[in-house]
Amino acid sequence: MPDAPAFTALLFGLRDCLVETGAAPKPQPAPGALQVLDWLHQQQVPCAWVDELGSDDAAHLSRPLPNWIKAQHRTPTPWPAPDACWQALMTLKTHTLEGCVLVSGEPRLLQSGLNAGLWTIGLATGGSLCGVGSPQWQALSPLDQERKRGKATLQLFALGVHSVIDHLEALDECLSDIAQRRLKGEKP
Amino acid sequence: MPDAPAFTALLFGLRDCLVETGAAPKPQPAPGALQVLDWLHQQQVPCAWVDELGSDDAAHLSRPLPNWIKAQHRTPTPWPAPDACWQALMTLKTHTLEGCVLVSGEPRLLQSGLNAGLWTIGLATGGSLCGVGSPQWQALSPLDQERKRGKATLQLFALGVHSVIDHLEALDECLSDIAQRRLKGEKP
Repeated sequence: MPDAPAFTALLFGLRDCLVETGAAPKPQPAPGALQVLDWLHQQQVPCAWVDELGSDDAAHLSRPLPNWIKAQHRTPTPWPAPDACWQALMTLKTHTLEGCVLVSGEPRLLQSGLNAGLWTIGLATGGSLCGVGSPQWQALSPLDQERKRGKATLQLFALGVHSVIDHLEALDECLSDIAQRRLKGEKP
Repeated sequence: MPDAPAFTALLFGLRDCLVETGAAPKPQPAPGALQVLDWLHQQQVPCAWVDELGSDDAAHLSRPLPNWIKAQHRTPTPWPAPDACWQALMTLKTHTLEGCVLVSGEPRLLQSGLNAGLWTIGLATGGSLCGVGSPQWQALSPLDQERKRGKATLQLFALGVHSVIDHLEALDECLSDIAQRRLKGEKP
């Protein structure tokens, strides 16, 4: 088996993926977010976050993130148009669409990624899908979590995303899976 | 057999595809160019030309073309980066990459289209590949034309383009072929 191909670039949603804006007074990194970014940075995979925000909100909400990650928050055309994703890839000086991935829990942003021709990974416990923030999520019974997660997973696959994960800690394994699918010739 | 899907947008090279800048004092439409554009316009397929040019040259060289066709001549990052193609698609307000096609005889522009994730159609008698303009081409013997065409065709397929045509008059048939490949699930 040849080595799995490297990823060209990773795009992330900001709210609903990398940061949480729930009960805490300040935005907090989502569980696993800093570890995932650190791991990608070590592998020299260019990363950017994408959101629809004014400059002040963008600066405030992205404060918990490392400063090397690029930002795409001015959307020339709103999601689900592909423009925001293409702009983010150009900001990262991406030389090819091949091997570019979007991770998000926001269906409109995931649709933008699909329209732009990206591999898309849906996050099934994001606030906008499950209707609750992380603290509230922790307070749910395992059965209620499972029920909400199942519903969100179905909704994401119906949208056409390529993979669904429950939280960012599972991104590593999910990317390995997509690398294998790319090796077999699958295209997004 | 279901109906072939419509094309989302078509991009064309300017020099080396839609116009000729050879012996004539003024730029001339390439053989078949106006007919092809008219046919696409009737089918409401958005079209743009892409070239690396200053504003004055762009205005001069595109004069023989209908004024509804959009222009992408300021390249933020030079070919073969995908930026020029994505910018052209955004200018056309393209809602999805699926069904977007680039036609050109310029290998660097075709590589940009491949990097952007487009279907690409190479033009095997373009000046930059065969090293001669249209009047000189007409003056070649059939054997010399065939030899140059064969060499250019091989060079284009080696680049990775999806189809090669000899002239724009063959675009109609080539698009039908790509539509059939899309129906069968092939992706660019």
